[in-house]
Amino acid sequence: MLDRDRCLALDAEDPLREFREEFVLPEGVIYLVGNSLGALPRHAPERLRRAVEDEWGGQLVGGWNSAGWYDQPLTLGDRIAPLIGAGPGQVVVGNTTSIAIHQAVSAAARLRPGRKVVVSDARNFPTDHYMVQGLAESLGYEVRDVSEGRFDDVAAVLLSEVDYRTGERQDVPEVTARVQAAGALMIWDVCHSVGAMPVDVSAADFAVGCTYKYLNGGPGSPAFLYVNPRHQADAVNVLSGWYGHADPFAFEAGYRPAQGIRRFAVSTPHVLSFAALDAALDVWERVPLHLLRAKSVALGELFAGLVGDALEPASPADPERRGSHVAFRHPDGYPVMRALIDRGVHGDFRAPDILRFGLAPLYLRYVDVYDAARTLLEVLDKELWRDEKYARRLAVT
Amino acid sequence: MLDRDRCLALDAEDPLREFREEFVLPEGVIYLVGNSLGALPRHAPERLRRAVEDEWGGQLVGGWNSAGWYDQPLTLGDRIAPLIGAGPGQVVVGNTTSIAIHQAVSAAARLRPGRKVVVSDARNFPTDHYMVQGLAESLGYEVRDVSEGRFDDVAAVLLSEVDYRTGERQDVPEVTARVQAAGALMIWDVCHSVGAMPVDVSAADFAVGCTYKYLNGGPGSPAFLYVNPRHQADAVNVLSGWYGHADPFAFEAGYRPAQGIRRFAVSTPHVLSFAALDAALDVWERVPLHLLRAKSVALGELFAGLVGDALEPASPADPERRGSHVAFRHPDGYPVMRALIDRGVHGDFRAPDILRFGLAPLYLRYVDVYDAARTLLEVLDKELWRDEKYARRLAVT
Repeated sequence: MLDRDRCLALDAEDPLREFREEFVLPEGVIYLVGNSLGALPRHAPERLRRAVEDEWGGQLVGGWNSAGWYDQPLTLGDRIAPLIGAGPGQVVVGNTTSIAIHQAVSAAARLRPGRKVVVSDARNFPTDHYMVQGLAESLGYEVRDVSEGRFDDVAAVLLSEVDYRTGERQDVPEVTARVQAAGALMIWDVCHSVGAMPVDVSAADFAVGCTYKYLNGGPGSPAFLYVNPRHQADAVNVLSGWYGHADPFAFEAGYRPAQGIRRFAVSTPHVLSFAALDAALDVWERVPLHLLRAKSVALGELFAGLVGDALEPASPADPERRGSHVAFRHPDGYPVMRALIDRGVHGDFRAPDILRFGLAPLYLRYVDVYDAARTLLEVLDKELWRDEKYARRLAVT
Repeated sequence: MLDRDRCLALDAEDPLREFREEFVLPEGVIYLVGNSLGALPRHAPERLRRAVEDEWGGQLVGGWNSAGWYDQPLTLGDRIAPLIGAGPGQVVVGNTTSIAIHQAVSAAARLRPGRKVVVSDARNFPTDHYMVQGLAESLGYEVRDVSEGRFDDVAAVLLSEVDYRTGERQDVPEVTARVQAAGALMIWDVCHSVGAMPVDVSAADFAVGCTYKYLNGGPGSPAFLYVNPRHQADAVNVLSGWYGHADPFAFEAGYRPAQGIRRFAVSTPHVLSFAALDAALDVWERVPLHLLRAKSVALGELFAGLVGDALEPASPADPERRGSHVAFRHPDGYPVMRALIDRGVHGDFRAPDILRFGLAPLYLRYVDVYDAARTLLEVLDKELWRDEKYARRLAVT
């Protein structure tokens, strides 16, 4: 087992160590929730100030041209593309992951008109199911769980590359090939993998993801939608807003879809939220993703190794089958996590019994992981979580 | 006709005059595009700084509880409600007008299952049509123009209170009653009326609107959706994301809609864009809407009166039938508007031939309107717009 000095040495030789300096991290906190909301990039406040004061305040409606607001959904899409194995003109930014799912599943259903089944996965983040359920009910489709393993009558399959609770990672190329061999379309949700490892959705039909987790785009920053170029000419955007029109400023009476990825834009971008994401993507241009993955694996192995058998693991033991968070089960997971947070180690709890620790490799140090695991062991060993002040549920956990 | 001194006197006695001081308005510009993008509230930059540095940077994921992010869609909805004649628990904020239209029309269609027609209006802003067309195509519905005047087989009627081009204002109570008497549901788009006059959608079934125009919520600030309480128990949100779930943090496999307006929330709010809107709504708490409307009418009469017959009017002559912008037609409207902007008077152009002047009564002075009209007359009289530098189209106008 590594000791603390060895962790300090690993930090000193970490090729990603300088990225930590680009983020604001509160004093006295070990932040293991970067998989839920990423940290603030140090230069983001100035980018926001510029968007608010110089662009909105100074240029007013002219900002749509002069500040590049109009093209944000596509320019930011092109900046995200390299992070998911996509090329220019394949990704559009805007709205939320839920809404991007509605667009992708609707489009996939229209591309496979004879098939009236959509497959989801009980392990998807619930909004993925919920969106599929709402759409399927509206269209009269069946929703089937992936565990049934039958795709030959399926229009679309929506799976997550990394499980939001357990961190289990799917074999994207293998699953994509299997689904497509059965004639179904593959939609990947990469919310819990993008920015934590190299992602490659280029063989998939569609992909969706959020930008406020490992990408550090800010609370509620806009989501993205990848559409494989082979579908861009035929896929229908059911949310056929003016931003996806071939000539939005002609104010024609009839919807006429744009060519290319612009067709999947819906409407006016949330400019201020886009500005923060734009700042976050400045950092990503310089991140070597293979080094990021190597560090993520090393941090995960360190944390899991230190915890040992003090907690029941919920994540796969094989780091190749794991994303960048590690999870454990505890029947009193909620007070355990609150006791831990009270001691400066911030993870999160996912009902009913999951303790989740996000290991954002861009700004987390080996020594942070070491200290977090030691604190966790102390909380468990001394049963500090039994204090009644940790029992009361907060509104959001 | 009023002269400039009389305008200065009207400004001096204007009961709304102090509101102008609450907005940042660039030097040397008369801004008549507040109906497209409202001006920056003077205290909004500090609110954004707080959201970015103190909340995101300082509280990180804790901001969902401690900074009130989680409840923003409902708390901001309750702040908007009084501006549209609605009560608490009737308005939810989030996403875009286009997406709110998709929700409202979908829900209305489900509430009127035997009727397979949706009525829209060629005078709606195009995204309204486009969204209806995309949804109708997906569901196999017919889209009919309101000019046909037949509602007895119609599920939902989507109309704009104020025409985005001409400023023509509908008689909301009369139209609502007529549509509902035919058994159809009434959906109002109040994008071009909210924040310009008292709006009352309380008799309607649904209403949608944006917040970046007269409400000054910032570029691409989130939209709102009103759902009449009589429908809240039965209406289905087809965009059934986790934010509309009865217990979002239980992570249940099945979607179970929340009671009340929360059911119409979709997913994670764009927090930074919400923060700017929140700042803008601080101002609206103090605005007497009847005085706002009186000033809007007076500004419109002043502008139309000064322009006289120098341009063909596109707006109704009767101020009661007009919103808060006035519009004119000119075959070379684009270069005319560019020549005007070059002289510090910012209006906008809407294809094919509409010159549009938004008269935001909260921060516009009588003397601004006077000076703008005189400049317009000079551009027309001296044919200054014939300069070839004004002919080239910009990407966004």
